[in-house]
Amino acid sequence: MGDCIFCKIIQGEIPATKVYEDEKVLAFMDINPLNDGHTLIVPKRHAETIFEIDPQDLIATIKVAQKLAIAIKKALDSDGMIVVQLNNKAAGQMVPHLHIHLIPRWENDGLQIGKWEMKPGDMEKIKDIAEKIKKEVG
Amino acid sequence: MGDCIFCKIIQGEIPATKVYEDEKVLAFMDINPLNDGHTLIVPKRHAETIFEIDPQDLIATIKVAQKLAIAIKKALDSDGMIVVQLNNKAAGQMVPHLHIHLIPRWENDGLQIGKWEMKPGDMEKIKDIAEKIKKEVG
Ligand SMILES: [Zn+2]
Ligand SMILES: [Zn+2]
Repeated sequence: MGDCIFCKIIQGEIPATKVYEDEKVLAFMDINPLNDGHTLIVPKRHAETIFEIDPQDLIATIKVAQKLAIAIKKALDSDGMIVVQLNNKAAGQMVPHLHIHLIPRWENDGLQIGKWEMKPGDMEKIKDIAEKIKKEVG
Repeated sequence: MGDCIFCKIIQGEIPATKVYEDEKVLAFMDINPLNDGHTLIVPKRHAETIFEIDPQDLIATIKVAQKLAIAIKKALDSDGMIVVQLNNKAAGQMVPHLHIHLIPRWENDGLQIGKWEMKPGDMEKIKDIAEKIKKEVG
């Protein structure tokens, strides 16, 4: 899909801090993290929303989301995890390529999910966290 | 699971406004809806979070979530859909039985997801909406 930023990441045309990849799915760090360890899981085949995606691609994506949720929790010793997937602009979807957000939570981390600010994270810290996650995901 | 409210709904011990049921998964209306059409998708076999659930049960649950997302969008002509699944209290999970929320969105509906208030909905309205969804889910 010509201008899709996630397709470009999948094709290696735009860099990303990848933590997992298989035939059908890619996982990489969100560069505007809401919390440490904020990770995105995307199907490699372009689909905009849950309404259109091929069920087999959705299944492959949720399987990787589970694998990564477990790995992130272990790597970062989080107390909880938000799994969220937004469909269409009316729901706050920013990139029109289906993606599952994994957002680790800690007791009293003060995160207010309602204020979803696109604030760039510290890339060094993001890369350090990615290394920890990659060790756990195996 | 003795005191699990969703297990009791699954077993028919507590009433719920069901919109879909198969061998492995149940879908019913949230009685504290954040928006019209707010629906919960649960695996019938008890599992607390994405960290423990059997992958096959997770897959069955996401397949039904997709089916219902499509049906709800059609039934209510929504402009978007939030799909969210919270794990552990630190992430805001209220009932310790894995559930996927489907929350329809409309342009300018003013919903602030950060203020997740447990405000009981109008049961008559919820039942009317459920009928519309059931017609679409087939
Ligand atoms: Zn794409
Ligand atoms: Zn249960």
